[in-house]
Amino acid sequence: MKLVDSISRMATLARMYKKEGKSIGFVPTMGALHEGHLSLVRTAKKHTDVVVISIFVNPIQFGETEDLDKYPRDIKRDEELARTAGADIIFYPPVSQMYTDGYSTYVFVEGLTDTLCGASRPGHFKGVATVVTKLFGIVKPDIAYFGQKDAQQAIVIKKMVEDLNVGIEIKVLPIVREEDGLAMSSRNAYLSEEERRDATVLYRSLEKAEGMTKHGEKDPKKIIKAVTEMITEVPGAKIDYVSIVDTKSLKNVDKISQEVLIAIAVYIGKTRLIDNIMVKPVPEAHSARKGLAV
Amino acid sequence: MKLVDSISRMATLARMYKKEGKSIGFVPTMGALHEGHLSLVRTAKKHTDVVVISIFVNPIQFGETEDLDKYPRDIKRDEELARTAGADIIFYPPVSQMYTDGYSTYVFVEGLTDTLCGASRPGHFKGVATVVTKLFGIVKPDIAYFGQKDAQQAIVIKKMVEDLNVGIEIKVLPIVREEDGLAMSSRNAYLSEEERRDATVLYRSLEKAEGMTKHGEKDPKKIIKAVTEMITEVPGAKIDYVSIVDTKSLKNVDKISQEVLIAIAVYIGKTRLIDNIMVKPVPEAHSARKGLAV
Repeated sequence: MKLVDSISRMATLARMYKKEGKSIGFVPTMGALHEGHLSLVRTAKKHTDVVVISIFVNPIQFGETEDLDKYPRDIKRDEELARTAGADIIFYPPVSQMYTDGYSTYVFVEGLTDTLCGASRPGHFKGVATVVTKLFGIVKPDIAYFGQKDAQQAIVIKKMVEDLNVGIEIKVLPIVREEDGLAMSSRNAYLSEEERRDATVLYRSLEKAEGMTKHGEKDPKKIIKAVTEMITEVPGAKIDYVSIVDTKSLKNVDKISQEVLIAIAVYIGKTRLIDNIMVKPVPEAHSARKGLAV
Repeated sequence: MKLVDSISRMATLARMYKKEGKSIGFVPTMGALHEGHLSLVRTAKKHTDVVVISIFVNPIQFGETEDLDKYPRDIKRDEELARTAGADIIFYPPVSQMYTDGYSTYVFVEGLTDTLCGASRPGHFKGVATVVTKLFGIVKPDIAYFGQKDAQQAIVIKKMVEDLNVGIEIKVLPIVREEDGLAMSSRNAYLSEEERRDATVLYRSLEKAEGMTKHGEKDPKKIIKAVTEMITEVPGAKIDYVSIVDTKSLKNVDKISQEVLIAIAVYIGKTRLIDNIMVKPVPEAHSARKGLAV
């Protein structure tokens, strides 16, 4: 495995692989790798000849009051994990190369970015779309892999790739969870022991929402109310948002009549965590029958 | 020569050429081809294996009151000209494929786009940067060719390519002029016979500016004043801007101490024309000697 810390070196390697007819799989990350990231690397290794994982804590996707400075960084540990998972290259560019003096070009996806995390974190998705465009330009992957944990990010990137004719396939892989259901996240490292216990409320509340939908509940308001109550019962938890949205437009739905994304963001102490599930409504006939049976 | 009117077909061809190890030269245009465009195609043909010229009148770079609808379109004539100049592919995508329903991704270059034509045409360079990013994604050129006539566009595209690590070489070729000096432009077709004569004032005024600089004038205000007076003498001409700016930052200069861009935009009747020259100051010693000799 190569550790590449220069943009021009990475671009040269990518061109070389292309010339050799090799396909490139790409996993962009901010490091602090966990099983979620590694599942992407392992899948990329199955699909493509050369797997590149980038580790870059992208300053322009953090707000001024956010955790850019304290975001966990441990390249030695990440290197070992990436190697074991089968990565061929860790691309680890310095901020000074990615954003040179006078940097001024940004990629912006309208509409999809003013809801959910975009509403709480203005500028976040502009930073994400921009850095991903840059990384795609350097690494030139055939397929890029993203986690469903960052559901809105995945949808924004897919839209950006489609709109800008980037010509890269985007694969979104399932959330990897701890045994108690907590979605893997680099930010889980911020949690104290007590907060770690409190944090299980995110997935528990999503399971509750899923259960209600499976039992025929089609009113998003009722589900949001139940989820909100469940989270509010945990003293250390503070809701940022609980939303039920269309899986493509990310707009709130009035009724659950097709597959929806139930997405939540919750502060556990000072740590902001997100989680989500996709749920389909039970067919009308089925829920009606269930209704009769009750 | 192939006429390709589908994005997916163009992308497939580009991938095929890449696999065969062929280099791709690219000339993006809005059609209504003239010698300026054809000089780009001929140069591309010298440098690269396959030359693609795109013809796409990009709606999102036109303002609401601008000439989108009347912009000249004649694909048969363009096809013949492009073939004769040596193009291998004319890429001629329909608007409905380039901007599908719900299109929402834009590329924006800050700073460079709020002066000169960017000030007169808000949103213009956002439209240009976006469509060029899309075309680059589809055509995947090794080298792309732009004309110095659209000086600000060339600088914006260069900056965008550098910032977003697009990995495409940008070549900017000299302005091609009519015998009387008028810069070739598709919009010259709008001019009546009288306006056509009036239009020569653009280049004449730039020659005047160049002459003043060669004679040691280093004060941009004096040059702008002389150019403005010369244009104002033509009754059918109305100045949009006359600017002397740094060739990289496009910011106004206080003194001509290194190479500058003298750029003008002038309405001749209802037709907005642009032109520019790059001029270097004469060395201090030289202008001092000339001063003594006078």
